[in-house]
Amino acid sequence: MADSAALRVRVFSLNCWGIRFLSKHCPQRYAMIADLLCREEHDLVLLQEVWSEKDFVFLKKKLACCHPHSHYFKSGVIGSGLAIFSKHRIQDAFMFRYSLNGYPYMAHHGDWFGGKAVGMAILNVDGLAAHVYVTHLHAEYCREKDSYLPHRVVQAWELQQFIRHTSSGADVVIVGGDLNMHPQDLGNRLLRAYTGLRDAYVETEHFDGCEDGLTLIAKNPFISKKDIVPFEKGMRIDYILFKGSSNISIHCDSMSTTQGSVPDHPYPYSDHEALTAELRVDTHTQTHTQHEPGRDKRSGHQDSAAGKVAELVDILTEARTEVKVGLHCAERMRYTATRTGVMGLALLFLELAIVAVAWLALGTEQPFPRASFYLLGALCLAILLTTSLLYIFYTMEVKSLQGAEDQMRLAVGSLQEKLRDVPLAQLHKFQRGPPEGQEPSSCGPEE
Amino acid sequence: MADSAALRVRVFSLNCWGIRFLSKHCPQRYAMIADLLCREEHDLVLLQEVWSEKDFVFLKKKLACCHPHSHYFKSGVIGSGLAIFSKHRIQDAFMFRYSLNGYPYMAHHGDWFGGKAVGMAILNVDGLAAHVYVTHLHAEYCREKDSYLPHRVVQAWELQQFIRHTSSGADVVIVGGDLNMHPQDLGNRLLRAYTGLRDAYVETEHFDGCEDGLTLIAKNPFISKKDIVPFEKGMRIDYILFKGSSNISIHCDSMSTTQGSVPDHPYPYSDHEALTAELRVDTHTQTHTQHEPGRDKRSGHQDSAAGKVAELVDILTEARTEVKVGLHCAERMRYTATRTGVMGLALLFLELAIVAVAWLALGTEQPFPRASFYLLGALCLAILLTTSLLYIFYTMEVKSLQGAEDQMRLAVGSLQEKLRDVPLAQLHKFQRGPPEGQEPSSCGPEE
Repeated sequence: MADSAALRVRVFSLNCWGIRFLSKHCPQRYAMIADLLCREEHDLVLLQEVWSEKDFVFLKKKLACCHPHSHYFKSGVIGSGLAIFSKHRIQDAFMFRYSLNGYPYMAHHGDWFGGKAVGMAILNVDGLAAHVYVTHLHAEYCREKDSYLPHRVVQAWELQQFIRHTSSGADVVIVGGDLNMHPQDLGNRLLRAYTGLRDAYVETEHFDGCEDGLTLIAKNPFISKKDIVPFEKGMRIDYILFKGSSNISIHCDSMSTTQGSVPDHPYPYSDHEALTAELRVDTHTQTHTQHEPGRDKRSGHQDSAAGKVAELVDILTEARTEVKVGLHCAERMRYTATRTGVMGLALLFLELAIVAVAWLALGTEQPFPRASFYLLGALCLAILLTTSLLYIFYTMEVKSLQGAEDQMRLAVGSLQEKLRDVPLAQLHKFQRGPPEGQEPSSCGPEE
Repeated sequence: MADSAALRVRVFSLNCWGIRFLSKHCPQRYAMIADLLCREEHDLVLLQEVWSEKDFVFLKKKLACCHPHSHYFKSGVIGSGLAIFSKHRIQDAFMFRYSLNGYPYMAHHGDWFGGKAVGMAILNVDGLAAHVYVTHLHAEYCREKDSYLPHRVVQAWELQQFIRHTSSGADVVIVGGDLNMHPQDLGNRLLRAYTGLRDAYVETEHFDGCEDGLTLIAKNPFISKKDIVPFEKGMRIDYILFKGSSNISIHCDSMSTTQGSVPDHPYPYSDHEALTAELRVDTHTQTHTQHEPGRDKRSGHQDSAAGKVAELVDILTEARTEVKVGLHCAERMRYTATRTGVMGLALLFLELAIVAVAWLALGTEQPFPRASFYLLGALCLAILLTTSLLYIFYTMEVKSLQGAEDQMRLAVGSLQEKLRDVPLAQLHKFQRGPPEGQEPSSCGPEE
C-alpha cells in the first residue's frame, strides 16, 4: 500500500457538559476548548452537550479560521446539543431525532428536553464523500436498575438504521459521540455488528490516554464517585467509530484521550475526556473485509459471513427481548394512568352527584363546605388532565417500542433467510435457537 | 431497448380514510379494498390512513396469499396510518417521523395525533434493490389561509432529505402517498426538483381515470363541496413518483385512478381516489437523464444542469421564506404563551398577597369569599400549567423550524458553490438574485 497516496483525517470528539448556569466553569471551559481546537486544527470536530446556541456561536467565531465550516443541530426544547466543526466544506446536513428519549416528567434527568438525536453531515474530503455522524444517547443513571435501557436500545437500533441507510453512497463513514453505553453493552454490539463500524480505540496502532480508553474517569474533578458506580476507575462511553466503502481501506494510526487535568489550567475541558483519532484513508485497494452482513455479497468467506449473521441474529433477539420488557412496562404505566384517570372522573361525578342530590332536595344543607367542594373538584380536574397527558405520552411510547420491535422482527426474518442460503452444515454450526419471526400459515405471511 | 428484459412493477396507492367509528362504512370499504387488491395482485400496495391496527391485521389476513409480505409503520398516538403490502420480500423497514406536524390542541384536525411520517421498505424485486416509500403529509384545511403551510414545507423538506439520503444504494425508487399538495405547490416542486423523482401521472403513456388526474373529486359521495374549495372539480394531491439509478431506466406505461363510484357497490373505496401505475424497469441502458442536481456529475449538459441548480436555488429560497414566516408565527405564539403565563403568575401572587395582608392584620375580615379565592387560585394554576406546556411545545416548534431553515441555508450555499463552477456566462443566464447564506467574514465562516 503506497502510504504517500493515503489521506489523513484527524477527528476530535467531546461531550462538552455545557449546561449554562449549572455546569461548572462553563465559559472558561469553552474558551479552553476553543484554544485547544484552534491549536490542534483537527479535520473534524464532533461536539455533544453544546446545549446553548450562544456557546456554539462563541465557538464558531473562535474557530472561524481553523474550522470555517460548521453545523449546529437543533432539536427538542434545549437540544440537540450536537455540533460539527470542519476544515472541509459541509455539503449537506440531516438529522434524525430518536423516537424515544426518556420522560418529560423526569425533569431532573433532563434527557427528554434535550431531544437526543443523530446528526449527519456530508463532506467532500479531498474528493472522497465522507458521511460524518455525531450523536448522544440517553444517559444511564443507574446501571443496576436502568429504567431507560429499552429507550437506549431503541436509540441504538435507530442509530444503526439511520447510519446504514444513509451511508450507501459514502466513501468514508465516521461516527463520534457519547453513546452512554459500555463497549460490550447490547446497543453497542448491535450498532457495530449491523453497520460494520470499527472502534478507533480497539483498532488503533498507538494509544495515548486513560487506562482501558476510559472517557469518564474517577480522577476527573467534575466526576463524583456515584457517577461511575459500580466502576472504580471509570467507564468508556464515548467513541469514535469508522468504516470505509468497499474500495477504501481505513486504519486508525493513533488515538488519544485527555486524562482529567489539563496542563496550565485549573480544571479539565469537561466531565468527559476528549477523544482524538488519526485515521489513514487509502483508496488503492480493499484490504479490510466489510463487516456489514446486510450488504456482504462479494465476500468469499461464507463461513465467516454466516457466523456474523448468526451472531447478529443473537444480538437482535436479545434487543427484541429488551424492547419487549420496555413495552410491558410502558403498557403497565399506561394502564395505571388510565385507572387513575377513571378514578378521578368517578370522584368528580360522585361529588357532583352528592351536591346535586342535596340541591334537588331543597332546603337541605349542602353536605360539603364550599371550600372543600372547590378543592376536591380542582383536584379531580388536575388528576384528569395529568392522566390524559400521561395516557397520550405512554401510548406514543408503546407505539415507538412496538415499531422498533416490528422492524427488528423483520430484520431477524431477513437475516434468517440469508442463513438459509448458507449450506446446511454451516447453518447447523452457527445458528442457535429456533427460527423466529415466522408465523405458521399456509401462505407464509410475514410482517 | 429489448422489451423482453424489462421488469414490470405495478404499484397501487390509496388513502383509505380509515378512522374507526368516524369514517363512513369503514369495515365494508376495507372489505372492498381487500377484494380489489386480491383481484388485481399489484406488486406493491402503499396505503395511508389505516389508522387502526385491527384494520391492518384484517387486510394482512385477507392478502396473505397475494401479498405475503407487509409492514405497518407505527407512530404518534394513533398513527402513522402507513402500510405496505408486497408480493416481494421486505428485507428492511425504517421510518422517519416528521419533526413538525400540527398542534396537539387542534384535536379536531387530528394530524398531530397521527404522527405523520415517511416509511421506507427495502425490497428485492427480481434482483433489483427497490426502495419503496409511503408517506402522508399534514392536511390543508383552508387553502386561502393555510396556517399549516410552514409545517408542510418542512415535512416536504424532510421527506426529500430522507429519500435522497437513503436511496443512494437503490436501483429503483418508488414513492406513493397523499402529499396534501397540489402539483405546483412549493413542497411538491421542492421534492421533485431535489430528488429527481418523476410524477407517474405526468410521465404515463396511457392514462385512464379522473380528468386532470384528480384524486379528490367533487363527484365522490364522501366529499363535500367545502372540502375542495376553491376548486370545483377537485384536486390532485395523491401521487406515485419514481426514479431509477444511473444504469436503470424506468417508464410509466400506464396509469389509472378510480373515479368516485365502484361498479356493483353502493359507495367508493375511500374519499380519495386510488392510484395504479404500471412501471417498466429496464436495466440495459441509461436513457433518462438523472435530475438530481446534488449528484449529477456525469451529465455533459452543463447548460441544463446549471439551469436546474438555479431553479432549485429559487425553490429553496421560496421555501426558506415560508419557513421564516412559520418561525415568526411560532415565536409570536411562544411570546403570547409566556406573557399569559406571567400574568397568571402575577394574579396568583396578587391574590396571595391580598389574603396574606388581611391575615396579618388580624381580625380584619377576609377580602375574598372563600369560594372565589379557591376558584381564582385554581384558574391561575390552570393558566400556569397550560402556558408552560404551550411554551415547551412552541419552543420545540421554533427549534424544528430553525433546524430546517439552517439545513436549507446550507443546501443553498452548496448549490451556489456548484453554480460558481459553471462558466460565468451560464451563471449570469441562470442565477437570479444575490448569493445567500454567506456571511461576510475574512475567513468565510459558514454554517
